[in-house]
Amino acid sequence: MSIEGSKTSGAPRRIRLGMVGGGQGAFIGGVHRMASRIDDRYELVAGALSSDAARAAASGAELHIAADRSYADYREMARAEAAREDGIDVVAIVTPNHLHGRIATAFLDAGIDVICDKPITTTLAEALELVQRVRETGRLFALTHNYSGYPMVRQAREMVAAGELGDIRVVQVEYAQDWLSTDLEASGQKQAAWRVDPAQAGAGGALGDIGTHAEQLARYVTGLELAAVSADITSFVPGRKLDDNAHVMLRYTNGARGMLWCSQVAPGNENALRLRVFGSKAGLEFQQEHPNQLRFMPLGQQPRLVTRGGSGTGAAAGHATRIPAGHPEGYLEGFAQLYRDVAEQIAARWQGRAPDAMACSVPTVEDGALGMKFIEAVVASSRAEGRWTDARLTF
Amino acid sequence: MSIEGSKTSGAPRRIRLGMVGGGQGAFIGGVHRMASRIDDRYELVAGALSSDAARAAASGAELHIAADRSYADYREMARAEAAREDGIDVVAIVTPNHLHGRIATAFLDAGIDVICDKPITTTLAEALELVQRVRETGRLFALTHNYSGYPMVRQAREMVAAGELGDIRVVQVEYAQDWLSTDLEASGQKQAAWRVDPAQAGAGGALGDIGTHAEQLARYVTGLELAAVSADITSFVPGRKLDDNAHVMLRYTNGARGMLWCSQVAPGNENALRLRVFGSKAGLEFQQEHPNQLRFMPLGQQPRLVTRGGSGTGAAAGHATRIPAGHPEGYLEGFAQLYRDVAEQIAARWQGRAPDAMACSVPTVEDGALGMKFIEAVVASSRAEGRWTDARLTF
Amino acid sequence: MSIEGSKTSGAPRRIRLGMVGGGQGAFIGGVHRMASRIDDRYELVAGALSSDAARAAASGAELHIAADRSYADYREMARAEAAREDGIDVVAIVTPNHLHGRIATAFLDAGIDVICDKPITTTLAEALELVQRVRETGRLFALTHNYSGYPMVRQAREMVAAGELGDIRVVQVEYAQDWLSTDLEASGQKQAAWRVDPAQAGAGGALGDIGTHAEQLARYVTGLELAAVSADITSFVPGRKLDDNAHVMLRYTNGARGMLWCSQVAPGNENALRLRVFGSKAGLEFQQEHPNQLRFMPLGQQPRLVTRGGSGTGAAAGHATRIPAGHPEGYLEGFAQLYRDVAEQIAARWQGRAPDAMACSVPTVEDGALGMKFIEAVVASSRAEGRWTDARLTF
Amino acid sequence: MSIEGSKTSGAPRRIRLGMVGGGQGAFIGGVHRMASRIDDRYELVAGALSSDAARAAASGAELHIAADRSYADYREMARAEAAREDGIDVVAIVTPNHLHGRIATAFLDAGIDVICDKPITTTLAEALELVQRVRETGRLFALTHNYSGYPMVRQAREMVAAGELGDIRVVQVEYAQDWLSTDLEASGQKQAAWRVDPAQAGAGGALGDIGTHAEQLARYVTGLELAAVSADITSFVPGRKLDDNAHVMLRYTNGARGMLWCSQVAPGNENALRLRVFGSKAGLEFQQEHPNQLRFMPLGQQPRLVTRGGSGTGAAAGHATRIPAGHPEGYLEGFAQLYRDVAEQIAARWQGRAPDAMACSVPTVEDGALGMKFIEAVVASSRAEGRWTDARLTF
Repeated sequence: MSIEGSKTSGAPRRIRLGMVGGGQGAFIGGVHRMASRIDDRYELVAGALSSDAARAAASGAELHIAADRSYADYREMARAEAAREDGIDVVAIVTPNHLHGRIATAFLDAGIDVICDKPITTTLAEALELVQRVRETGRLFALTHNYSGYPMVRQAREMVAAGELGDIRVVQVEYAQDWLSTDLEASGQKQAAWRVDPAQAGAGGALGDIGTHAEQLARYVTGLELAAVSADITSFVPGRKLDDNAHVMLRYTNGARGMLWCSQVAPGNENALRLRVFGSKAGLEFQQEHPNQLRFMPLGQQPRLVTRGGSGTGAAAGHATRIPAGHPEGYLEGFAQLYRDVAEQIAARWQGRAPDAMACSVPTVEDGALGMKFIEAVVASSRAEGRWTDARLTF
Repeated sequence: MSIEGSKTSGAPRRIRLGMVGGGQGAFIGGVHRMASRIDDRYELVAGALSSDAARAAASGAELHIAADRSYADYREMARAEAAREDGIDVVAIVTPNHLHGRIATAFLDAGIDVICDKPITTTLAEALELVQRVRETGRLFALTHNYSGYPMVRQAREMVAAGELGDIRVVQVEYAQDWLSTDLEASGQKQAAWRVDPAQAGAGGALGDIGTHAEQLARYVTGLELAAVSADITSFVPGRKLDDNAHVMLRYTNGARGMLWCSQVAPGNENALRLRVFGSKAGLEFQQEHPNQLRFMPLGQQPRLVTRGGSGTGAAAGHATRIPAGHPEGYLEGFAQLYRDVAEQIAARWQGRAPDAMACSVPTVEDGALGMKFIEAVVASSRAEGRWTDARLTF
Repeated sequence: MSIEGSKTSGAPRRIRLGMVGGGQGAFIGGVHRMASRIDDRYELVAGALSSDAARAAASGAELHIAADRSYADYREMARAEAAREDGIDVVAIVTPNHLHGRIATAFLDAGIDVICDKPITTTLAEALELVQRVRETGRLFALTHNYSGYPMVRQAREMVAAGELGDIRVVQVEYAQDWLSTDLEASGQKQAAWRVDPAQAGAGGALGDIGTHAEQLARYVTGLELAAVSADITSFVPGRKLDDNAHVMLRYTNGARGMLWCSQVAPGNENALRLRVFGSKAGLEFQQEHPNQLRFMPLGQQPRLVTRGGSGTGAAAGHATRIPAGHPEGYLEGFAQLYRDVAEQIAARWQGRAPDAMACSVPTVEDGALGMKFIEAVVASSRAEGRWTDARLTF
Repeated sequence: MSIEGSKTSGAPRRIRLGMVGGGQGAFIGGVHRMASRIDDRYELVAGALSSDAARAAASGAELHIAADRSYADYREMARAEAAREDGIDVVAIVTPNHLHGRIATAFLDAGIDVICDKPITTTLAEALELVQRVRETGRLFALTHNYSGYPMVRQAREMVAAGELGDIRVVQVEYAQDWLSTDLEASGQKQAAWRVDPAQAGAGGALGDIGTHAEQLARYVTGLELAAVSADITSFVPGRKLDDNAHVMLRYTNGARGMLWCSQVAPGNENALRLRVFGSKAGLEFQQEHPNQLRFMPLGQQPRLVTRGGSGTGAAAGHATRIPAGHPEGYLEGFAQLYRDVAEQIAARWQGRAPDAMACSVPTVEDGALGMKFIEAVVASSRAEGRWTDARLTF
């Protein structure tokens, strides 16, 4: 596999991308592909888009993947691509959760970088193994906690890091949806079915699907380390095996307190991910459904609206934006930012230089492990009637 | 004391109102007075506005209270007014929390109805004694959990009761302020000083001051009985003796779950009381700072904006409104509604008829006791590291 | 009539208020009464509440007006009250528009101050006569363009006057309602009927009813003088004789440009009065349905939310507010502010001192005349196919 | 040039795209490229990215364009590409306005489809010539009035067409920005400089740059034909040759009335494009900065929030969306929709079938001519002191 990116022309060559999962009928695979295209740093050249050979082939053909690089088996793909001179540089893994670990391992072992959808695995143990694998292989592993790619999330993170909020005291984070308010899985709806199945989704229902996004967003913006959780998780829809609602109290190692609520049974909510952080000097608020703005509330001053590209935004937000203020960027651009940051990391490696520091805040395999720790701690606390349960994880 | 309200003219006579507390420099007394005037059902004729005799007299004179009915001592006032033919019908108690119980008792014992500011007392034990006193004397006791008077809170309550939300599953309620983010009490600010002093405020800081409002609002709207709480309360400002932030997980006897957050250290929040209720059929949201609207979110339909006086509002909201849609009513009108409802209850008694059912949802002495139970359960749970603690109270 | 306000007690005596119009079934009279009560500066002691004697008497009795001061004729009332030692100090006129002028004249001539509902009259000529009458009699004449009483309107006015917006360039003002989207007047709805009848409402339909509010609000906040208008007015509901929609382009004498839209056929709008002002240094926005906040937008900085009672509000807003930030004041409090300001003006006269300057921004008879000039200029321009028509008026 | 799109694989081949303009330092060219990539229907294979040969070459190299297809002259490019077997199918024109017409003509004459940025030309006469050219050549001509690609704009259009608003009565449309509040052009800022230069921008300043967007959006959604305009345009910044603020009253041929305001001197506005339409049965509102939602206000019912992908959205919105509700799509996706619709039209032609009807609402050359007519009518009306000026255009 060629790793040099230098060319005679001005642009580095496009990164060769492979994909596992994401065949016809899938959802998140298409999102990854659109995200990879927006900034033109990737070309999709190989895939194991389905474990069904015919469907894999048909899906590949639709995506302009050459027939001989459309694989029915990810292991075969890892082996074959690693052997090609023009083999893929990076693989995107977009299968159900329980397959992430083994697929990632196969590609890491083949010397191929990995972009993996979240949550990282279905158990903490498996996540920790993956941490080991990444460290041993030295490959890049990016976890698509995509909200980390929003410019205003980067802005919020930068403001907290710069001390604009003072000492953080209170974190309120929530992610509410309503699409599982009824027994949708009984209807055969595929997206619902695997998410409520412990074998495919792991120990967390709403918790794994969206709670980890909320936990990661709070951590990403504040930089705080979670110390312990006290939780109460519930399945409201009769017969459902995993939680569809979780209430969690949070304690951080710096003494801050917080609350996390995630729910998939809250009518009127689509993807209502909302983070509020309050410090000794100021507060801020971010709402995912309106990602081009941030509310900043300095103590004793008038609340201010910070807009993407608008006055007073900093370098981190600027790094993650494509178009001027007032023309909204959305979910796909935020997702694309992770792809762009990974591309920068790869290009820097090709060129033997340090990557742009701004591109180094992509969620990692360790973030994934912390998410699994969070799920396991919440489930354990809830089973122990809300006992405060350690959520720390030292690598 | 004359209790007949019939007159030769068309209007019942105005109810004679006395006030304890609320002298010069006080805040909530003025609110009660404005609230009592809006609907012209009361006239303020007596007061023990301050325990300082000179200040009591000066305060009374400012308020057009006759000099001989401006008392320096509430016990004297209760005695003297009870003895007058034209004595007060009802007393409004607007002193700091720790005095509520004894003052109320004095007036109840004198046969005078009571309107009492919240929280009812500083301990549960005292609140339960007051419940007894009210029951024994048969007097009216109204607790000014004023948000109960907002038309859209009445609307929400009516919608829940009518089953429009289905079975209630999740309750999210919060009340955030920022005015105690710094050590304001050290500056001698009077409103701050007594609220952070356990001797005057009781066991709860933010919890007693605003947490009880949140708890009561959730209960008022949903009609659910709180079963148990698991809590984590904190004092962020160094040296502060009472909590300035509280996180509480809620379990209701019907199986519903909830979360309550109250904070006085959340920069950018003035009186951000917000209630969200989610049931099997719909969700709704109310924000105190925008009290003329309610967001109603039926599952599988478009969210709707319900406005005070607008399409689709019911009898309960109509009962509590004065002016047409689009011209906002505010805090004072909501407060006035409790006064108006009490006036209707008194007028009905004078006239020997049942009061309008709509006027009977004023918070009672039992509501006050439930609030004290909530505070004590939260404090106990927090001390026991979040152990689920019984919050039920049977009368 | 006694005009001295000195008393032995600390408070000035209450101002004696009379009312013409506002009997049973009326709307705005009740609003005036609530507004007059909130701050306890008035007592309603006399009225000619209806031109029907029986209804006048019944209405008076309901309002605790003594039978001998409940008049069936406003002329008799003006005469009798002027002759009493304890006669009214001020009269509130709350009849349909076409009666304002003659009633006001009767009371002015009797030496009684006037608070008059808007619009002032039905023709400019009549308004100008009234200006003359006010000047000759030296009485106080307050016009209840009630939005002028909102604290955040006062704040906006103060900010413009202080130059915080720089030179004003653009004014966008609109007032949209939907209640006349259908032929409501045909149903016998009384509020609709007189508003669409030229004999009672004057030359303007929506224009007179709400357009004058918009024009006055823009003028009140900016202090700009309107130079000329170019207009297009329409009646969308078949058979309606007056406009239910008006579009007006505005030119101010300082070179600023603007647009005014008023409509009563805009579904989804209740009382959507919204003012935006843009200058060389900043912009601001006020929305009547959310009157506790103002959006301030300094050029090149982040937009800020200015809240009633919150950080950075000035003396003018402080003067017009009753309760702290975060507890909304509404329409009635704004209305009450005009009553309070009039009370201060009267009290100052009694006490032989200059009134508080903050209390002197109540709309006057001249404001009323400017409003009539606006209506006539708009109607003339529209008839002349949008020809720019002079809207200036020099007194 | 090969025009058949059939392939052995499942996907039609990518459309070969060329670009004129959009070299290093340009803005809108990058937007077109991102838009063309999102749905993977195009590959950029040729360009005349700059009239400066060296810059054209460097720009091409950065974009992976082969050196021999990176032209310094658009005429050469049209000739050469038309001659190639693998020549471009369509060209995107992203130069300043005054060059659009001649470039488009060159490619149309070479038998190449055109995607052209707006406004179409700098004069109506030139636009009408282009209409002729398009008709004679039979080529596809798409004008990137990109807001037409927003799903909720498509939804609004569909709702109006379905009669959900009844007869349209009032149209309020505005587009406000603040970036030209100062004399930015004097600083050498390139985006500002050409927009205020009549030679490059045409007769309209704000009018051409954003006013045409507002006019087109209103027309696109309502389907109404503009009859006449009465206007007042202004240049507030001293020395500026073109308008930076325009007020326009609108009359439609069906009797509807409207107002259009566009401004580039309104502090606090980024790209505040907002459309409100009111009919006899309902109103609706769209705000470009929050493009994932639409406010629908049926008369006599509660206002509803229509969300992209949410309940009650129709086929037109569904056609234009990529990801589920609650995950915002933004400006680039809206822009991409026009590219996708053009791709579908081309693919249908290749396959000898009728295109999907949903893909046929891309703005056309006639839309461009209507926009130029609008500009010229507004400028003429303003010069004639607001005289109502015919804005109709018959093709």
